[in-house]
Amino acid sequence: MTNTLIQSGTRILGLDPGLRRTGWGVVVAEGSRLRWIAHGVISPPEAAPFSERLLFLLEAVGEVCTAYSCDEAAIEEVYVNMNPSSTLKLGHARAAVMLAPARCGLSVAEYSPNLIKKAVVGSGHADKGQIAFMIKRLLPAAGEVKTDAADALAVAVTHAQLRKRALLEMVS
Amino acid sequence: MTNTLIQSGTRILGLDPGLRRTGWGVVVAEGSRLRWIAHGVISPPEAAPFSERLLFLLEAVGEVCTAYSCDEAAIEEVYVNMNPSSTLKLGHARAAVMLAPARCGLSVAEYSPNLIKKAVVGSGHADKGQIAFMIKRLLPAAGEVKTDAADALAVAVTHAQLRKRALLEMVS
Repeated sequence: MTNTLIQSGTRILGLDPGLRRTGWGVVVAEGSRLRWIAHGVISPPEAAPFSERLLFLLEAVGEVCTAYSCDEAAIEEVYVNMNPSSTLKLGHARAAVMLAPARCGLSVAEYSPNLIKKAVVGSGHADKGQIAFMIKRLLPAAGEVKTDAADALAVAVTHAQLRKRALLEMVS
Repeated sequence: MTNTLIQSGTRILGLDPGLRRTGWGVVVAEGSRLRWIAHGVISPPEAAPFSERLLFLLEAVGEVCTAYSCDEAAIEEVYVNMNPSSTLKLGHARAAVMLAPARCGLSVAEYSPNLIKKAVVGSGHADKGQIAFMIKRLLPAAGEVKTDAADALAVAVTHAQLRKRALLEMVS
């Protein structure tokens, strides 16, 4: 699902990488306000060779960057305490997803899952349901958002908040 | 170091991925003969942000694909029994390196380290010194080859051999 609402301001692309499903979400930071622009989930064809699945991710995220004229990007860091084979696959998917905004000349900020939960829900131990609930409250125009896209919007919201804080510190 | 010798035939790009050093080697398979074309090592700037180091790999390998008009690519599979943080980083680098030939429309074959050792040295437990020694014998025109590039040439040699076997089976 992809819905759109075009606005001016700094456009932030949030990314929740995965080889089967990569969530993405675009928000615009206008001063202290935050507005939803679009979100979606990218699913590479599972039967395709590995390199083609990665290429699908790279190109699809690249299209999102261009379509929504994103200015900055942010992505979730990865827990490394899962099984090594899953870690390796996720590493590949994450690289393909990061490379898309990098190719468009965007910086790609990285945030730990705990920091994202803390920024969005207020607790580093929040579950996915709580994140989806808060995204709905923070970005009501987004409507019903599936988990992967909600996580991606949470990354974008985190970046908007921490970026704003960094800007305020610069002028104070 | 990069040396070149232009030939006709099927050009195979072998890749040994790494975030600090990615080895590459191009050989041409002409019937049952194998000839060296070029090899080198790519080192992204270590101080650059992570996404930019990945982008450096993607673009540098892409330039190699184009410069040597490669027809097929092959890459080493990754051992997953190392530490999870290293596995994750290597996964990222490997994706960036695989995506370069995929973007050029090339198929990217994957071979396990043991299969490569067996194909080049004759034993799945050969060490890096033995691989470098055999690469020097199989591709004398390559001259002195550093470890990362020797490993990449070994991947290309493996693909040339297994590809040739697959073609022979098709016509028999």
